[in-house]
Amino acid sequence: MARIAYVNGRYLPHRQAMVHIEDRGYQFADGVYEVIAIHKGRFLGEKGHMDRLEHSLNELSITAPLARKPMMHILREVVRKNRVYHGLVYMQITRGVAARDHPFPAKCVSSMVVTAVKRPPIDKKQLLAGISVISTPDLRWKRRDIKSISLLPNVLGKQKAIDEGSQEAWLFDEDGYVTEGTATNAWIVTKESELITRDISENILNGITRLAIIEAAKEKNIPVIERRFTIAEARKAREAFISSSNAHVKAVTCIDNEIIGEGQAGELTVRLLDIYMDFIEKVGGPQYAGKWN
Amino acid sequence: MARIAYVNGRYLPHRQAMVHIEDRGYQFADGVYEVIAIHKGRFLGEKGHMDRLEHSLNELSITAPLARKPMMHILREVVRKNRVYHGLVYMQITRGVAARDHPFPAKCVSSMVVTAVKRPPIDKKQLLAGISVISTPDLRWKRRDIKSISLLPNVLGKQKAIDEGSQEAWLFDEDGYVTEGTATNAWIVTKESELITRDISENILNGITRLAIIEAAKEKNIPVIERRFTIAEARKAREAFISSSNAHVKAVTCIDNEIIGEGQAGELTVRLLDIYMDFIEKVGGPQYAGKWN
Repeated sequence: MARIAYVNGRYLPHRQAMVHIEDRGYQFADGVYEVIAIHKGRFLGEKGHMDRLEHSLNELSITAPLARKPMMHILREVVRKNRVYHGLVYMQITRGVAARDHPFPAKCVSSMVVTAVKRPPIDKKQLLAGISVISTPDLRWKRRDIKSISLLPNVLGKQKAIDEGSQEAWLFDEDGYVTEGTATNAWIVTKESELITRDISENILNGITRLAIIEAAKEKNIPVIERRFTIAEARKAREAFISSSNAHVKAVTCIDNEIIGEGQAGELTVRLLDIYMDFIEKVGGPQYAGKWN
Repeated sequence: MARIAYVNGRYLPHRQAMVHIEDRGYQFADGVYEVIAIHKGRFLGEKGHMDRLEHSLNELSITAPLARKPMMHILREVVRKNRVYHGLVYMQITRGVAARDHPFPAKCVSSMVVTAVKRPPIDKKQLLAGISVISTPDLRWKRRDIKSISLLPNVLGKQKAIDEGSQEAWLFDEDGYVTEGTATNAWIVTKESELITRDISENILNGITRLAIIEAAKEKNIPVIERRFTIAEARKAREAFISSSNAHVKAVTCIDNEIIGEGQAGELTVRLLDIYMDFIEKVGGPQYAGKWN
């Protein structure tokens, strides 16, 4: 069956899904996106993703092409047409097409593109197998709370990790503090059993899976400390993991060639994955209504 | 006459010039560009632009889709087909189309898009009329020596200037030093008659017009001091101007509501525009073969 994409009002075969060369997403990275996990046909953290999308659009003064309800209808249609039961739905909104010039165009209709892709069901064993991460300076712009398509530094960080035989890069700021991964949030468990992830500001993107883990942990009376930590502290951690709509809770067993803990998924990581899985089966995602920066 | 664009091997009517939604330029800002001024049918600073393009591609490990000679042939064809005698030619190269995933794809053919647009001939009076600029923090990523399409912060800076009734924004770093404008290089002339523009590093893009001005000034024994300057120093300057392939030498007569000099184009600015015009008529552009960061 041919894949189907949604592009500006039309459902098209994937190969024919095109946008104009003067779409400002293509010439200026003038747009935002969301990636939502589909688990057993259910959209995980739907409300969180759509709230965050609204934040991104507002911060950039990009008009939503549709209200939330018809937008969700399109996402569901793309998921349905592609028969995705486990996988990801991707949506991108840009400021639209206009003759190339930096300022916002006077008249511009926002562009919207949606795709969906199948993925194997969540596999706990694989998530707990343990990946290695490297650390590298965070080269990104200063408004990381906006989920913009301006992802070139993320691409370069991720590729650097791959080149060095690792699977993800943890980015650190001028003061040596980890901000996040290139496409994931970063977590550690200290030797004192503190579960830590960076606090929210313009320095990081507040992950929907990050929020789900915080809520799920709270339910089980596991305290989550939201504060910054250095890469040096991370290398000495007892456990580490990453979170995202794609990675869920994924164990990190090596940081910059330093073995973390025992070189296998830590006790709390294993437990948090279970708690997270129960949480998404039960609730679907975070019931968050808070801040993005 | 319909405008013609070049897209991946084909010359197409502008309206039909499309790229795939999974072109990495659209999803990751994973690409670079150049804008070359056409003056009396001549490409200004052709060598400089193509050298810099090579630098940008190399830094990102993007393969040039063509050698320089056939690439220039396409640029000339687009200019010819659009009958541009005065104007701009725009070229964009991205890593190409691949299923969405951050790392560089194993197999990927770079995309190339070229457009051309007519502009009125260089109008000295207009360039010397004097624009006002605002200052705003530089939010961009750390590799500004790469002319990437990751231009969202530039767009926001420029829009902020427009919203405040100005024409350009000068960006300043954490220490209060001006890096450059959102799409131009920044220049001042101090009360001590020093002609200053920021030195080359990863903090700014080395403008081809910037280089042309430096070479043209050198020929006339006008010293150019390449050093950083604060926004405070700029506000107290005797003269100020911006340079780019689009703005050439354009007088700045107001910075953050402070009148610069007498509120009209300064003496050296007027002279530099003349010198620059003579230089491009004679030489076409900088004969530069130096560094980009």
